[in-house]
Amino acid sequence: MGVSHDSPAAEPPKTNGANGVKKSKLPTHPLGPLTGDEISRSSRLVVQSWPAGTEFRFKSIKLREPPKTELIPYLEAERAGKELPTIDRLSDVVYYLKNTDKLHEAIVDLTKDTVSSNKLMGPFLHANGDGDEIMAVERVMLADPGVQAEVAKLQLPEGSVLVADPWIYGSDGFTSEDGKFYDDKRIMQCYLYMRDPANSSEPDSCHYAFPLPISPVVDTVTMKVIRIDIVATGLDEKVKPLEPWQPVPPNEYIPEAHELRTDLKPLRVVQPEGASFAVDKFAEMGDRIRWQKWDLKVGFNQREGMVLYDVAYDGRPLFYRLSLSDMAIPYGDPRHPFHRKQAFDLGDAGAGIMANNLKLGCDCLGSIYYMSGVVTDADGQPVSMPNVVCVHEQDSGLLWKHTNYRTDRACVVRNRELVLQTILTVSNYEYILAFIFNTAGDMTYEVRATGILSTQPVDLSLTKVPHPFGTVVHPGVLAGYHQHFFSLRVDPMLDGRGNQVVYDDAVPLPRDPVLNPHGVGYTVTRTPITVSGGYDLDSSKGRQFKIINPSSRNPVNGAAVGYKIHVPPFQPILADAESYHHRRAEFADRSVYVTAHRDGELFAGGEYTNQSRGGTGVRSWASRGDELPEKGDPVVWVQFGINHIPRIEDFPVMPMEMIKVVFRPNNFFDKNPALDVPPSTQEANGSVGLNEAMEGCNLGGKNGELSGACAHR
Amino acid sequence: MGVSHDSPAAEPPKTNGANGVKKSKLPTHPLGPLTGDEISRSSRLVVQSWPAGTEFRFKSIKLREPPKTELIPYLEAERAGKELPTIDRLSDVVYYLKNTDKLHEAIVDLTKDTVSSNKLMGPFLHANGDGDEIMAVERVMLADPGVQAEVAKLQLPEGSVLVADPWIYGSDGFTSEDGKFYDDKRIMQCYLYMRDPANSSEPDSCHYAFPLPISPVVDTVTMKVIRIDIVATGLDEKVKPLEPWQPVPPNEYIPEAHELRTDLKPLRVVQPEGASFAVDKFAEMGDRIRWQKWDLKVGFNQREGMVLYDVAYDGRPLFYRLSLSDMAIPYGDPRHPFHRKQAFDLGDAGAGIMANNLKLGCDCLGSIYYMSGVVTDADGQPVSMPNVVCVHEQDSGLLWKHTNYRTDRACVVRNRELVLQTILTVSNYEYILAFIFNTAGDMTYEVRATGILSTQPVDLSLTKVPHPFGTVVHPGVLAGYHQHFFSLRVDPMLDGRGNQVVYDDAVPLPRDPVLNPHGVGYTVTRTPITVSGGYDLDSSKGRQFKIINPSSRNPVNGAAVGYKIHVPPFQPILADAESYHHRRAEFADRSVYVTAHRDGELFAGGEYTNQSRGGTGVRSWASRGDELPEKGDPVVWVQFGINHIPRIEDFPVMPMEMIKVVFRPNNFFDKNPALDVPPSTQEANGSVGLNEAMEGCNLGGKNGELSGACAHR
Repeated sequence: MGVSHDSPAAEPPKTNGANGVKKSKLPTHPLGPLTGDEISRSSRLVVQSWPAGTEFRFKSIKLREPPKTELIPYLEAERAGKELPTIDRLSDVVYYLKNTDKLHEAIVDLTKDTVSSNKLMGPFLHANGDGDEIMAVERVMLADPGVQAEVAKLQLPEGSVLVADPWIYGSDGFTSEDGKFYDDKRIMQCYLYMRDPANSSEPDSCHYAFPLPISPVVDTVTMKVIRIDIVATGLDEKVKPLEPWQPVPPNEYIPEAHELRTDLKPLRVVQPEGASFAVDKFAEMGDRIRWQKWDLKVGFNQREGMVLYDVAYDGRPLFYRLSLSDMAIPYGDPRHPFHRKQAFDLGDAGAGIMANNLKLGCDCLGSIYYMSGVVTDADGQPVSMPNVVCVHEQDSGLLWKHTNYRTDRACVVRNRELVLQTILTVSNYEYILAFIFNTAGDMTYEVRATGILSTQPVDLSLTKVPHPFGTVVHPGVLAGYHQHFFSLRVDPMLDGRGNQVVYDDAVPLPRDPVLNPHGVGYTVTRTPITVSGGYDLDSSKGRQFKIINPSSRNPVNGAAVGYKIHVPPFQPILADAESYHHRRAEFADRSVYVTAHRDGELFAGGEYTNQSRGGTGVRSWASRGDELPEKGDPVVWVQFGINHIPRIEDFPVMPMEMIKVVFRPNNFFDKNPALDVPPSTQEANGSVGLNEAMEGCNLGGKNGELSGACAHR
Repeated sequence: MGVSHDSPAAEPPKTNGANGVKKSKLPTHPLGPLTGDEISRSSRLVVQSWPAGTEFRFKSIKLREPPKTELIPYLEAERAGKELPTIDRLSDVVYYLKNTDKLHEAIVDLTKDTVSSNKLMGPFLHANGDGDEIMAVERVMLADPGVQAEVAKLQLPEGSVLVADPWIYGSDGFTSEDGKFYDDKRIMQCYLYMRDPANSSEPDSCHYAFPLPISPVVDTVTMKVIRIDIVATGLDEKVKPLEPWQPVPPNEYIPEAHELRTDLKPLRVVQPEGASFAVDKFAEMGDRIRWQKWDLKVGFNQREGMVLYDVAYDGRPLFYRLSLSDMAIPYGDPRHPFHRKQAFDLGDAGAGIMANNLKLGCDCLGSIYYMSGVVTDADGQPVSMPNVVCVHEQDSGLLWKHTNYRTDRACVVRNRELVLQTILTVSNYEYILAFIFNTAGDMTYEVRATGILSTQPVDLSLTKVPHPFGTVVHPGVLAGYHQHFFSLRVDPMLDGRGNQVVYDDAVPLPRDPVLNPHGVGYTVTRTPITVSGGYDLDSSKGRQFKIINPSSRNPVNGAAVGYKIHVPPFQPILADAESYHHRRAEFADRSVYVTAHRDGELFAGGEYTNQSRGGTGVRSWASRGDELPEKGDPVVWVQFGINHIPRIEDFPVMPMEMIKVVFRPNNFFDKNPALDVPPSTQEANGSVGLNEAMEGCNLGGKNGELSGACAHR
C-alpha cells in the first residue's frame, strides 16, 4: 500500500496560472518555510483548479523542499558567496473535498503560479486530524442521543460535565460481517471522561481522574456516531453491563488545588552583556542562528515543527537536514478498543500545529529569543503560531578541567549550551523537544516526555489489585502500559557530501603467548554499512555508530573525520511482527536505520500514518537493500524511546522523563575544540559564597523548620 | 587471599590508654567524620602502642562507622526526638612501619582512648599511594644514573625537563627467574614524559604530548629503581633500541596558549532572596542539608570522599548510606608494561585525599555553600581539605507541563535541583562527581569524566596509521583504549528497614484468540532477587531494577513502595575472566550486584586494591549466595562505565563524558510529588525577551561577523 504516484489523477486539476492571484514577494531562500501569503496562494490556486462551488477541507500546506541535487549547489554557492542558482518555489497541499473521504495531494508551483500536480489518493490513506475536527467530533458525540442513553445508565451526579478525548482510530485490519466494525474508513474513537462532579464548573479540572467505560466511534465524513463501545474494566477482556458510577475523589494538577511550597527561592539567569548568539532572517519565515562557531538555519512546518537545515561548525558543513521525523506510541492493553491505541503524533496530528506558544520565564528561563511559525487552517488560510521555538543559552556545569598536581594549577572551562526548544501538546500529553549545541562541537537532541497519562476506567474494587495491563494511578483509574518511539532523521553532510555510516565494536583479543599473554588486550573493529537496512546496538561490544566522511581526513592522525552518535538503548516494540502496531510503526524495531537518500522520504512512519497499514516508511525504504557506497548519500534514522510502565507519581501530571541523543565529533577536529573557551571567573559570573551567611543558621526543631537566618544570604 | 583478620597480630600493640593523650571534645554524632583532633589522637595512640623510636608511615585514618545494628536505633531515636543511645567512637588506622613493607591495620577506640586492635596484614596486601610518596618516587627515579643513561640515548634538546607519572604497578602474577620481574612487593611503574622543550620553563606545559619510551620501576620500600622498562612504540610487542628523539609540536591546554573566544557573554545565576537550602552541622566535620523536603547528612573521608548518610524525603527514610565505592580503569594494550595498567582511583589513591579545593565561579556557579574535610598525612597528622564539596541549586529546564487544549491554559513547573559536587584529580585525570536531588523525589548520581589521557609514545612514522590499541592524538602520541568502571554502593532504607531488590521485565503476551487476538498485548513480570549475586540489564525486556519495601504499601494502589534505578548500560570488562584485570576489578562485569549487608563491606574492589589479586570485593561477597529474604537488608552495587576509545578531541584535555544513575520514586508517593512546586513566573525569575533587540541585527558578510547591535540586548 502506498501513495499511488503513478496512477492518473482521478479528478484532474484545472491549473489557472496567474489568473486573479496576487503575486507576493517571493522569499529569497529555497529553504524558507512558506509564508502566510504563500499558504493562501497555494490553497487559492488549488480552489481555482476545481469547478466553482467545490468545497474543501485543507489538511496541510507545506514547503515542498527542493531536490537535494538542486539545493546542494545552492548551499555551496551561498557558503562561497557566489551567485545563487534559481530554484522554483513549490508547496505540498493535502486536502479533502469537504464532507467526503476524497483525499488529494497537490503540488503548487508558487514561482509559476500553477498547480503542477493533483492526485486523488488511493484507499487506506487518511490525512491527519486537526483541532477543529477534534473539537467537532467531541461536540457531535456528546450530543448523540445513543451516547446520552448509555451515559444515563451511569447515573452520574447532577451537573456532571462530560469531556472526551477523540483518538485516531488506529488499525486492526478487522471488518465485521454486520458492518459495525471496520478500519478502512476515516473514523475516530472517543474516550469519555468527566470533570470532577464536585467542581464541574472548573474547565481545567483533570478529567483523566474520571474515566468512563463508554467509548463512542465517530465517522469523520458524516460526523455521526457509528458505534458505541463499552470497555472492559476488569482484569480480562470481559465487558460488564454499565453500572451506576461510584464516587471517587478528584486528582488535580492546577496549582490552586494545592498548598504550594513557599521555600523555593527565585533563581534568575542573567546575561548583563546580552546573549552570545545572533539571529537574522534567511527568509521571511526562517531564522539563521550563529553562536560559538555554529551556524544553522531553522525552519518550521506543520508536520515536523522545528527543522534544522545546513548546520555548520566553523565554516565546515555538518548536517544537511535534521528533524524529528515521527513518533509512535503503541499501547499494550490487548482488549478492544484499546488494542488499536497507537498514536503517531507527528503524522496523525503534527508537531508544528500542536506547538505551544512559549512563555517567558515559564517555558524558557534567561535571555530568550522566540521564533514564530505559520501553519494552515481547514480553509487553507494561514494560522500564525507565535513563539513556537525559544532560543537561549544555559550553563551546564563543567566542560573540562585539569589540575596539575605538581603546581596545583587548575584550568577549568564551563559548558555553555545553546538550546532551541519547542513543546507539543498532543491531547493529553506533551513533548518538550530541543536541539542543544555546546562549545565543544557536540549537538544533542533532547526529548522530555511529560503531560497526562491517557487513562481508562478500572473497577473500583480492583484499585489495590495488580493489573496485567497497567498501573492503577487513582481509585478507579488505570494508566495502561505503552511504549514511546521516536525517530530522529539525520541527513548528514560532514565536510560536504560523500558520507558513510559505520559502526565500531570493541572486541577482546584472543589470548596469545606473544601479543596477549595476560588476556587483557582489546581492539576496535570497524564495520561500514554498505547496504541500507536496520541495525542494532550491542552493549556487549560497546557498539558506536558513526557518520564519517572518507574523503576528509584528520590532519593529525589521518582518520576519516566523523561524528559519533550516542544512541540510547531502548526496548523494541513488543507488539508482535504480524500485528498492525508493528507493521505501522515502521521504525519501532531497530535502533538505527540507514537508507540511501531519496527526496521526499522524510517521515519514518510514512507520509500518512492515520489508520495506516504499514508498507511505507523507513523499514520499507531500508528493505530495498540500496547500496551505500563509501562516498554515498546515506540518511540515518536514530530510534529511541521509553517503555512507559506508569508510576503513580506520573499522575495527575507526569514529571518529565528525559532521553538524549548526542552527536560528538570523532576525529573531526585536530584537538579539543573547546580549548579556546575562556575560563569562567567569579568576576564575570558574580557567583556568591554562602558559608558566612549559613553560619549561625541553626535548624532547631525536629520538624526541621528553617530559621529566617538561613533563608537569606 | 584477603585480610587475615583471624591470624594473631605479629607485633602486638601496646595500648596506652589515656596515657598522656589530650582528650578532645567528642563529636556528638556517630556518623560525624573524624575531626583533626581525632586523627592526631588516633595516630598518637598507635605510636604510643609501639616501642619508642619506632617510625611510621600513616596511610589513612578514618572513622570506623558503627555497626548497623547500633546505628539504626540511634537514627530512629534521632528522628523521633527520643533519647539517643551511646555509641563508642572508633577509628581505622592503616599504616606501615617506615621503610618496610609491614602493613598494619589498627582500630583505635577514641571513647576509651585505647588501641583496641592492631594487625600485621598478610601477603599481597598493599596500602594506597599518597601524594608525598608519588612526588618522592618521581624525584628518586629522575635522579637515578641508570635512568639518566637511558634518557641520554634519546639525545633530548638542551634544557629539556623530564616529568614522570608514577603509576600503581598493577598485577600480573608474574615472577621471573632472574628476579627482575615480580608483582608481590609494593612497587611503582613510572611513565616518563617531558615538557615542551621549546618552553621547558612552563611548569604547566602539557607533558602528555611528549611521552618517552622509558619506564623505570621503583621499589617503594627502598625507594630505588629496580628495573628500567623500554616500551614498544610500534604496532606490535616488539621493543626497538632507543633512538634519538624527533621534534614534535606542543599541545597545550592552558588558556594563555590559545587565542580565546571573545564572543561568549557572561551568564550569571542569581538568587536575590538567597538559596533555598539550609545547612547545619550534625557533627564538627559533618553537614546536614535540608532542601525541598530532602534531609541528609554529608560525610567525607579519605577513601570515598563525599558520603551521604540517612537520606530522607518528607520525613520518610530512603537511604542509609550512599557513596561511590570504587572505580577501575583497565587499559586494553596487551604489551608490557601497559598490560598492568589498571587504576582503582579510590582504593589506590583516595577520592577524599585527591579532592579539589573548589573555586567560586569556576567549579561552581551561582550561590554556593562549601564543605570542607580533613584527611591524614604520612605522619598521622590532620590535613585540612577546604572546599571539597560545593552545594548549590540549579535550574534544569521543565519538570512538568500540561496545556488543556480546550481552555488553552498551560500549567508549567520548572525543575529545580540541588547539587552536591566534588572533583577528584588522580594524576592525569579528573572525575566530577555529584549527587543531584530534585523537587519530584528523584536522586541522581552524576559522573563527568575529564582531564588528560594517559598517553604513551608511538613511532612518529605511525602517526597516520590506525593503531590496534589506541588512537593517535598527536604526532608520536598514542592514547590507549581503556574502560572506566564505577561502582555506586547503595544501602537502602526505604520507609525503614526490611527492603528488597527486584527487577521488572516487560514481556509480550502470547497471541491468544480471546485475550490477545491482535498480538499487541504486553505485561510486566516481577522477579525478586532472593539470593546475593550479580545481575544484568536486558534492554530487550526493558528490565528495571527497583528497591522496594514489601511492608510499606502505597495507600492508593497497594503496591509495595519503591524506587527504581535507571542503570545505564555498559560494556563489561573486556579483559578475560582469567586475567588479573578481571580478577581484581570485582565489580566490572555485572550491572548490578546485590549482597546481604555486612558491616565493613564498603569497597567493591576490596579493602586493598593496590596490586590486589582478586578474591575480595563485591563479586566474592555476592558469591556467598546469601539469602535475601523479602524483608531483608540488601545492599545494591550499581555498576556503570565508559569504554573510552579516545577521540583526538579528547586531547590535550578531554571535554567531559557524562553518565548518570537516576533513582526515581516508583509508587512511593500517592501522586506526583511535585504538584506543590509553585509555577515559575517571569516576575520571579526576571527572564528577558530578546526579539526586539535582535531586530535590525543584520549579520552581513559571508564570514558572519556579528554586528555590534546583536551583541547587546
